[in-house]
Amino acid sequence: MSINIRSFAATSETTPVALHHIIRRDPRENDVVINIAYCGVCHSDIHQARNEWHNTIYPVVPGHEIIGQVTSVGKSVTKFKPGDWVGVGCMVDSCQHCASCTEGLEQFCENGATFTYNGKDRHDGTVTYGGYSEQIVVSDKFVLSLPEKLDPKSAAPLLCAGITTYSPLRHWNIGQGHKVAVVGLGGLGHMGLKFAKAMGADVTLFTRSAGKEQEALRLGADHVVLSTNPDQMKAVANHFDFILDTVPQQHDLNPYIATLKRDGALVLVGLLEPIEPTFHSGPLVLGRKTLAGSLIGGIPETQEMLDFCAQHGITCDVEMINIQEINQAYTRMLNSDVRYRFVIDMKSIETEEKA
Amino acid sequence: MSINIRSFAATSETTPVALHHIIRRDPRENDVVINIAYCGVCHSDIHQARNEWHNTIYPVVPGHEIIGQVTSVGKSVTKFKPGDWVGVGCMVDSCQHCASCTEGLEQFCENGATFTYNGKDRHDGTVTYGGYSEQIVVSDKFVLSLPEKLDPKSAAPLLCAGITTYSPLRHWNIGQGHKVAVVGLGGLGHMGLKFAKAMGADVTLFTRSAGKEQEALRLGADHVVLSTNPDQMKAVANHFDFILDTVPQQHDLNPYIATLKRDGALVLVGLLEPIEPTFHSGPLVLGRKTLAGSLIGGIPETQEMLDFCAQHGITCDVEMINIQEINQAYTRMLNSDVRYRFVIDMKSIETEEKA
Repeated sequence: MSINIRSFAATSETTPVALHHIIRRDPRENDVVINIAYCGVCHSDIHQARNEWHNTIYPVVPGHEIIGQVTSVGKSVTKFKPGDWVGVGCMVDSCQHCASCTEGLEQFCENGATFTYNGKDRHDGTVTYGGYSEQIVVSDKFVLSLPEKLDPKSAAPLLCAGITTYSPLRHWNIGQGHKVAVVGLGGLGHMGLKFAKAMGADVTLFTRSAGKEQEALRLGADHVVLSTNPDQMKAVANHFDFILDTVPQQHDLNPYIATLKRDGALVLVGLLEPIEPTFHSGPLVLGRKTLAGSLIGGIPETQEMLDFCAQHGITCDVEMINIQEINQAYTRMLNSDVRYRFVIDMKSIETEEKA
Repeated sequence: MSINIRSFAATSETTPVALHHIIRRDPRENDVVINIAYCGVCHSDIHQARNEWHNTIYPVVPGHEIIGQVTSVGKSVTKFKPGDWVGVGCMVDSCQHCASCTEGLEQFCENGATFTYNGKDRHDGTVTYGGYSEQIVVSDKFVLSLPEKLDPKSAAPLLCAGITTYSPLRHWNIGQGHKVAVVGLGGLGHMGLKFAKAMGADVTLFTRSAGKEQEALRLGADHVVLSTNPDQMKAVANHFDFILDTVPQQHDLNPYIATLKRDGALVLVGLLEPIEPTFHSGPLVLGRKTLAGSLIGGIPETQEMLDFCAQHGITCDVEMINIQEINQAYTRMLNSDVRYRFVIDMKSIETEEKA
């Protein structure tokens, strides 16, 4: 008894995202069936819908910032019950036995994590479909508990934008006494400001556009530096312990490296392939500085992040849309015209024709 | 009563290194006067003699791998006495009050460390002269004790080649259970093998030239990987915790990054300005990998390294030369024709004319 449900999918790289009926698998004994209430809209959704990473399998149902309520569970599932509010992020499975999985770092699964959409199910080989959908069926190990205190709408983007920025701050042990800078004020950047502040750091936003001071301060920044202003950049030379770079396009990293203290680290969470303009190694050697990267976060850390958000009253700043507005939302995202994340109210799919 | 002594200097970027008389300052109350017995020959000596870093002040007396015996000490010096065997490395002074100096990381002195040659004395503004010389006068804080067990000749290069490779291995906490690779088998690389092995790591040499297996194994490597062989490189994909890259010229870092495990670090100790060919950030993100740099080491760590060498019976593999052979030595170094460091027997300068 498979589940035939409504979703929104891109069926080729040039077609808009539109109504598409899909089959969800019968729940296996470890599965949780979730009625999707909200789904955040990530830049990756656009990349995949348009085949910009050259690996899209059509039809693709995007969406990996999923919040919903459990409707039923497989017979081995003890952690969740119908009615529970839960989340699903970028992954729905992994090998569960490699060194990374054993450490709870499923995003680095040595046999390849199964991503929430455009992935391949490890058991039946079917393509995974994401959160632009009425329902999703997910192995219980990859389902997160949504803390009661968190508003489900604005919690949705925590599952990707949240964990992607939380994880590196934790991994590099950011806390009180640290000077942290965040590059870019988008879906990820605004979460970086909130987390770094809540962890006790002195927080600076690097931005290329003037006029973001008020917003940045409201979101947790203590300072704003205009990266296009050489005097402002000079004033923060050798200043930061840690820079979280959230910009998802090629940009010059050298000026930011110059603002790191000795032993400081600049951590990329976006893919800027390759690094252009040319990267200079001299400052790394002369200041024992680090350039590194970070990829979302593992399941245990994602749960920790949700609990941290509940404890500190942190959610994303979101703009709600109906699923029928998804293509306009993509256009606005490409113009950086969103504060700071679109979230789809999935109730809106109920006006669409059933299969 | 200044000291007029024989040294070997380059007097312009096109003249060979040759006899040159210099004045050493009268010892200050914290100074140690050292009769130089041996001086290692570092690639930096060539760069500076030939103004390849565009900052040479002529005449330049190279040499910063100095071993000698104390002949006299200033009145405040308690740590050293005439007859002591001592070492001097790349630095002879620093501000002594910034955060880096306070932490014993004088190489990162925020007010600029005073380098052993081609530096500027912080007190009288004179240019510093290095170890191709009969004597040197150095503040006691920058003089290292040579452990009795170490042969003075082959200990000389520890002061630069040694500490440059020891420090990053220590800073990144290398020890038992770690898989470490060293890129390049020169003065630095051969020390990297010895240190990594003594620290308990499983050690691999990356080399571009076949036929180095026997040498590498003798020096401490457990494995040798020919970096020009794609199959051998593939066999060590995602394999190393730490790569110490000692190659002092531009080279493609991407193939080495591919051999790092998740959370692994590649640390540069040479200046390859800028990084060419283009560096890819994707593997950093997808494996939470690190590219970093390291610069010599602080004075406390340099002493620690000398003591570690005494404890583990480690010195450099050296080829002794007379100072009169220095220009031929440079030529051979540029052809990688030395195993693995030239050390000048400074007694040879006594055949030269006195001032």
